[in-house]
Amino acid sequence: MYNNQFARLKLSLPAKIAELKKIAFLDDQLLALQDPTELWRQLLSKAFPQAKSSTAKQAKLASLAATADKDLLTYLKTEQPVTVTSFYNVALQLLGFLPVTDFELDQPLKMMRQTNLSYNEVLQTPQDVIAAWYDLLTTSTKLGQTWLDKLAGDGYFANWQNVTQPLFFNGKAQPIFATSKLLYETVYVETDLDTDEDGQADLVKVDLIRPVETQTGLKVPVLFTASPYNQGTNDQAADKLMHKMNVPLTHKKPGSEDLTPPTVPTATPKKRPVNGITPTAQETFSDEFGYSLNDYFLARGFAVVYSAGIGTKDSDGLRTCGTAAETQAAKAVIEWLHGDRVAFVSRSSQQAIKAWWSNGQVAMTGKSYLGTLATAVATTGVKGLKTVIAEAAISSWYDYYRDGGLVVAPGGFPGEDADVLALECQSRQQVYGDFLRVKKIAAQKLTAITAGQDRSSGNYNAFWDQRNYLKDFSKIKADVILVHGLNDWNVKPRNAYQSWEKLQKLPISQKLILHQGQHIYINQLRSLDFTDLMNLWLSYELYGIANQAPQLIPQVLVQDNTQIEKWQAYDNWKTAKTVKFYLKPAQLTTDQSTQHIVSFNDQLPAEKFTYYQQQPAAWEHDLLESKATSPLQKHKLIFTSQPLPQDVLLRGVPHVKLQVAVNSDHGLLSLMLVDYGQAKRLRSAPSVLSMDQLQLGYHWQTASPVDFRLEKNPSPWKMITKGHLNLQNRQHPWQVDELKANTFYSLQIDLQPMFYHLPAGRQLGLIVYATDFGMTVRGNQDLTYSLQLADCQLELPVSNF
Amino acid sequence: MYNNQFARLKLSLPAKIAELKKIAFLDDQLLALQDPTELWRQLLSKAFPQAKSSTAKQAKLASLAATADKDLLTYLKTEQPVTVTSFYNVALQLLGFLPVTDFELDQPLKMMRQTNLSYNEVLQTPQDVIAAWYDLLTTSTKLGQTWLDKLAGDGYFANWQNVTQPLFFNGKAQPIFATSKLLYETVYVETDLDTDEDGQADLVKVDLIRPVETQTGLKVPVLFTASPYNQGTNDQAADKLMHKMNVPLTHKKPGSEDLTPPTVPTATPKKRPVNGITPTAQETFSDEFGYSLNDYFLARGFAVVYSAGIGTKDSDGLRTCGTAAETQAAKAVIEWLHGDRVAFVSRSSQQAIKAWWSNGQVAMTGKSYLGTLATAVATTGVKGLKTVIAEAAISSWYDYYRDGGLVVAPGGFPGEDADVLALECQSRQQVYGDFLRVKKIAAQKLTAITAGQDRSSGNYNAFWDQRNYLKDFSKIKADVILVHGLNDWNVKPRNAYQSWEKLQKLPISQKLILHQGQHIYINQLRSLDFTDLMNLWLSYELYGIANQAPQLIPQVLVQDNTQIEKWQAYDNWKTAKTVKFYLKPAQLTTDQSTQHIVSFNDQLPAEKFTYYQQQPAAWEHDLLESKATSPLQKHKLIFTSQPLPQDVLLRGVPHVKLQVAVNSDHGLLSLMLVDYGQAKRLRSAPSVLSMDQLQLGYHWQTASPVDFRLEKNPSPWKMITKGHLNLQNRQHPWQVDELKANTFYSLQIDLQPMFYHLPAGRQLGLIVYATDFGMTVRGNQDLTYSLQLADCQLELPVSNF
Repeated sequence: MYNNQFARLKLSLPAKIAELKKIAFLDDQLLALQDPTELWRQLLSKAFPQAKSSTAKQAKLASLAATADKDLLTYLKTEQPVTVTSFYNVALQLLGFLPVTDFELDQPLKMMRQTNLSYNEVLQTPQDVIAAWYDLLTTSTKLGQTWLDKLAGDGYFANWQNVTQPLFFNGKAQPIFATSKLLYETVYVETDLDTDEDGQADLVKVDLIRPVETQTGLKVPVLFTASPYNQGTNDQAADKLMHKMNVPLTHKKPGSEDLTPPTVPTATPKKRPVNGITPTAQETFSDEFGYSLNDYFLARGFAVVYSAGIGTKDSDGLRTCGTAAETQAAKAVIEWLHGDRVAFVSRSSQQAIKAWWSNGQVAMTGKSYLGTLATAVATTGVKGLKTVIAEAAISSWYDYYRDGGLVVAPGGFPGEDADVLALECQSRQQVYGDFLRVKKIAAQKLTAITAGQDRSSGNYNAFWDQRNYLKDFSKIKADVILVHGLNDWNVKPRNAYQSWEKLQKLPISQKLILHQGQHIYINQLRSLDFTDLMNLWLSYELYGIANQAPQLIPQVLVQDNTQIEKWQAYDNWKTAKTVKFYLKPAQLTTDQSTQHIVSFNDQLPAEKFTYYQQQPAAWEHDLLESKATSPLQKHKLIFTSQPLPQDVLLRGVPHVKLQVAVNSDHGLLSLMLVDYGQAKRLRSAPSVLSMDQLQLGYHWQTASPVDFRLEKNPSPWKMITKGHLNLQNRQHPWQVDELKANTFYSLQIDLQPMFYHLPAGRQLGLIVYATDFGMTVRGNQDLTYSLQLADCQLELPVSNF
Repeated sequence: MYNNQFARLKLSLPAKIAELKKIAFLDDQLLALQDPTELWRQLLSKAFPQAKSSTAKQAKLASLAATADKDLLTYLKTEQPVTVTSFYNVALQLLGFLPVTDFELDQPLKMMRQTNLSYNEVLQTPQDVIAAWYDLLTTSTKLGQTWLDKLAGDGYFANWQNVTQPLFFNGKAQPIFATSKLLYETVYVETDLDTDEDGQADLVKVDLIRPVETQTGLKVPVLFTASPYNQGTNDQAADKLMHKMNVPLTHKKPGSEDLTPPTVPTATPKKRPVNGITPTAQETFSDEFGYSLNDYFLARGFAVVYSAGIGTKDSDGLRTCGTAAETQAAKAVIEWLHGDRVAFVSRSSQQAIKAWWSNGQVAMTGKSYLGTLATAVATTGVKGLKTVIAEAAISSWYDYYRDGGLVVAPGGFPGEDADVLALECQSRQQVYGDFLRVKKIAAQKLTAITAGQDRSSGNYNAFWDQRNYLKDFSKIKADVILVHGLNDWNVKPRNAYQSWEKLQKLPISQKLILHQGQHIYINQLRSLDFTDLMNLWLSYELYGIANQAPQLIPQVLVQDNTQIEKWQAYDNWKTAKTVKFYLKPAQLTTDQSTQHIVSFNDQLPAEKFTYYQQQPAAWEHDLLESKATSPLQKHKLIFTSQPLPQDVLLRGVPHVKLQVAVNSDHGLLSLMLVDYGQAKRLRSAPSVLSMDQLQLGYHWQTASPVDFRLEKNPSPWKMITKGHLNLQNRQHPWQVDELKANTFYSLQIDLQPMFYHLPAGRQLGLIVYATDFGMTVRGNQDLTYSLQLADCQLELPVSNF
């Protein structure tokens, strides 16, 4: 275990005392104590909220070891003094660490030093005890929440008096709100849209959860998650719409795409007349969509709002997969929360309802499509949106479903496209009495999406240009936290990289967290205090708490890929320094290359072709296998470097220049950068450390701490990054050029961005191939690709480690 | 989808009316209605508890389709009559089925017939509508809970008046209790044991959850789960204690084990003086152990009690892995719940507390070790224990860690043994201040377990005889439901089979449910209304409701292994009829065999031996592979039958007779019965159908419906069952006989019991081998085994299908 806590606020002793009084650990009587041991005893008596009587508390003291042979109750009864050793022996046990197993009772500090748990060197005065106690409350338990959060889960704040305002401790909101009394309400926000073309403005359903204390005057900020999935999905129908991947690549007619948006009918939809206004909702819900980060804040004086948007169950409109209309529908919810838009109490009512309980400060949260909508709404500059926490967010849908003039599927979802996702999320068709009214137009619009996405070309066209949020990043006013997995091949890293490049130039606060996961949430990772960081951030953003959040949270925080539990702060993702590699047969070299032409053919025997479709992992294994025995040996080119003399950090976009020819008027190239060398690397997904053992409040939702472990057996390689290009889109994804058979062309490919620690001794590999069984179309065509190595090179942004 | 509901009670119309009045769907005014359509409309207006106003309710009606082109609101407004088609169109949507996707709006009954959803043929009178409405409330939704349970999740019973008594509908308790007000208390029950030998009677911690209504007079029954895991586990320490499997089998000295139990010191432990009695607990808890079946009942007027037992966190004593002491500790909890034993309010208090809120009726629940303890406590005949629901329970620990004079690990846990499990569960050592006091004796006792289990012999000895509950089955007074996975190779099927054989002879109610899962809970399986069955059962057992539970629940209920969602009732597990197969080289035949000696050697090349340890799945694949290309071809014997002319059902214990010789004075045989033939079989584990979409109450815990799907690609084989024998334990597991090298011996092996549907066209296979990489020791010894085929046969209990 190695402890990383970035969200701990360092305070002066007076500030610590004031805060400890606020949470009732200290009072004037305790502050008057002269004996540090007696103070320790008194503080300890408050550390077992589950024990309601003095005998019960004594039993708890007796359950802890103060020394290797004495329990704490005996230790105190025999008037032994508080010492650094006894204090931290007890502290470590309170944090969930086990004597003998995790640490030795004769030297607790040894383990604390090794695992980066903070401690106080001296414990001689009552002030020392107070400072150490404060710090202990803000230290992570073995499972990765602060001890105060653990105490809260045990009932420390149960029946807390005076819940008229949120309570902040160490800059973070505390779980004093009784989640058993939360209010659940549904309202319908009116948008300016008419995506189902019925002449009426589309209403979108909004499910909200707020503390009961808002009934008596408390105004709360809102965490808003726009999730198109949370009203259900049309899995069966969407599966049927999945596109075939076994189609040949074909020649494209040269030319440029016209990116002018199509003219749309501008008839203003009819708004519903407001007939009275009520403070009382008329619908409730109980099938809430759970996102544990939101749940965590529900106990802390925040409201949580979910809206699935146009075209979903109980909302009007239709899904459009990433257009401005979807953005506008989510923006409308914020406008309502900010007091700038009307909502109705039911889908057919004219009675309006205001978000009178909201303080008008909103954050958007969520991963994937949810984070995408958070980003999208931020680009509108809407009032009230203070910050977005965009996890694994798409910044341009072209980078989700396409690349370099090719259909390139999100990893794990070959055959999916914008139309499939639109249908998947269109849960409105699950309320069929409602859907009946828009069935016809829904079918038409879906057909238009299929046409617009244009799988036959793979080009960046007007359809995709309408789904590119990057164009509007200059309008962003909200502060932004980006979170992305460096191994996310669903929403590929370029989406975050391009956002980050633009965000840095804006006059906002912006933060970037890059983890070693795939397409995952990271709020349960043991090795990073992500939840605390978000608490610090949202307390600052939405409650205006002066907690130094922008200063405390590193600009760029990156998880190391070579060892577990290592997180490091950086100034930026990319680095300016680059190193060039040249290609010789089977070699990557820093010497200039020589004249050589090397070739491979993409066509596989029929049996192998079928096998790889069914077993994409076997395909990937055979592709990465650098031995000549690989069944794909003749169907790829592998160039490997000498073992590296020192560690390097690969940071940013790998850039490849190639001189390539193909025996046809069409062709595609895939490129993969690989880390070769036997090593135990991080596993691809985090492991559960302890099921359901994190309490997000008192008798409230639970979560399971997880973290990355090392592989059980060493692996021979790991893909660092990859890229794809249609040879006819050599200049731009929106421009198609002629391709003459057997003619060499110069071209350049940017691979997906990386942040990769390549240790000394490893070999860097570059694989050049064509069909990517996980992502591209699979025509199994008789295409032979040739490289003129003299004009090929690989440029990598690096910083020495 | 195919719907199986065994827990639906069929009632007369007057009884239906009375029950509908009880749950407020009917009143005298509605009963006076003459117009069936108006009655339908009125009933529908109560079907949307989340809608609080009439406009909100109307919007809900408008969201349902009454016909292929008309929504329900319009349908009713235009005075269309209730018809069978419109009623069931709406009904199916209320149950969560989707028009077009799941059924056609012009003929809903077609889909209902196909999926076994019940319906009423005629809907002409108000009485018809009432009967149909009642039946609908008891019908399963698409996700597998009754519609009334779905409505309850939507808030139908929210703020229910008059919660002074539980509410029963269709024979089952309804979720009218507010789970947000549940009370959580911890008490300490005093046992008669002194397993930590400190002279004091061991106290065991008991965590209980009860409805707040018990504070005002309601007495409730209890679901008690004795889970040694629920206070934490010592994973790291237990891992270190895991035994090596790469040890040679050795010769054992002939003789019989002495099964006489060791004499134990009989000093009676000192009981704690009772100094006052209080109705009020002094400790609470919030880190509750979640078992969704228990959670489900918490909303329904039942209390839930957890106790981890001796040697666990906050309890006295030490773990003993399956002895009578562990049974007694759990029994003591029932005695307290029944009013026959004392408990204290804290571990060090002399204040007693009674279970004054308990009605004295207890059921035990849980899977694996938890179900084992339920079985164990039942064998004490303790007062108050009305029934046990024992899932995947061990009936004799020898059948968990041993077989036929061999160490045979539970599947997936090679190296585990009784001592490892004792240490794993001894969470008392996590409260180290407490554990300090018993550290020394704990180490001694653990050493004694290691010695007693005697891995070197694998024999059934006095240690295992003390852990054989079957000896005491005649004392069982509680009714018993056994649930077991036919593919459970952790707690192997023999454990359930032997229990069932004994239970059938007792004057109790006994039921057996055999599913196609491995070591899993089945309460979320979509294809069986297991939760409803348990509700019916516990309402009958613990509240004395006359709901025909013993008659409605089939004696033996078995899930078919050849198709999804098929459950069938039987009278018994085994069948009397048998069929014999004889062995010829490579063949299983019903003709008499001839003289042939065939042999195999168990020793593998070193590289292969290492590989199979790391990849047990690859070993299993190569073992089952019947082609001559299998790398294990020379290390096993495979006998396969002709394709079967018709379906057969293999029911009970396969019995194998062999004439075998080995080139040594020691040896072991493993046998496997296999279903050969390309087919899409059930997957090994159920798939999640919809995450968290089952609500166990209102704003209460959720669960995810799951079910078995067919394999994506056909598989060539499936293991039916297996068995193991030490050749020196030819007569009994407790008797060791001499084994002379190269001498033929006759022996018989009972394989693990099976209930397997083998379809026509499949081939039956018998594999004879030695080292079982998943279960036996792996000595990789140069042992050659020979069979004299003339004296070998396989006898299978079968019933024609």
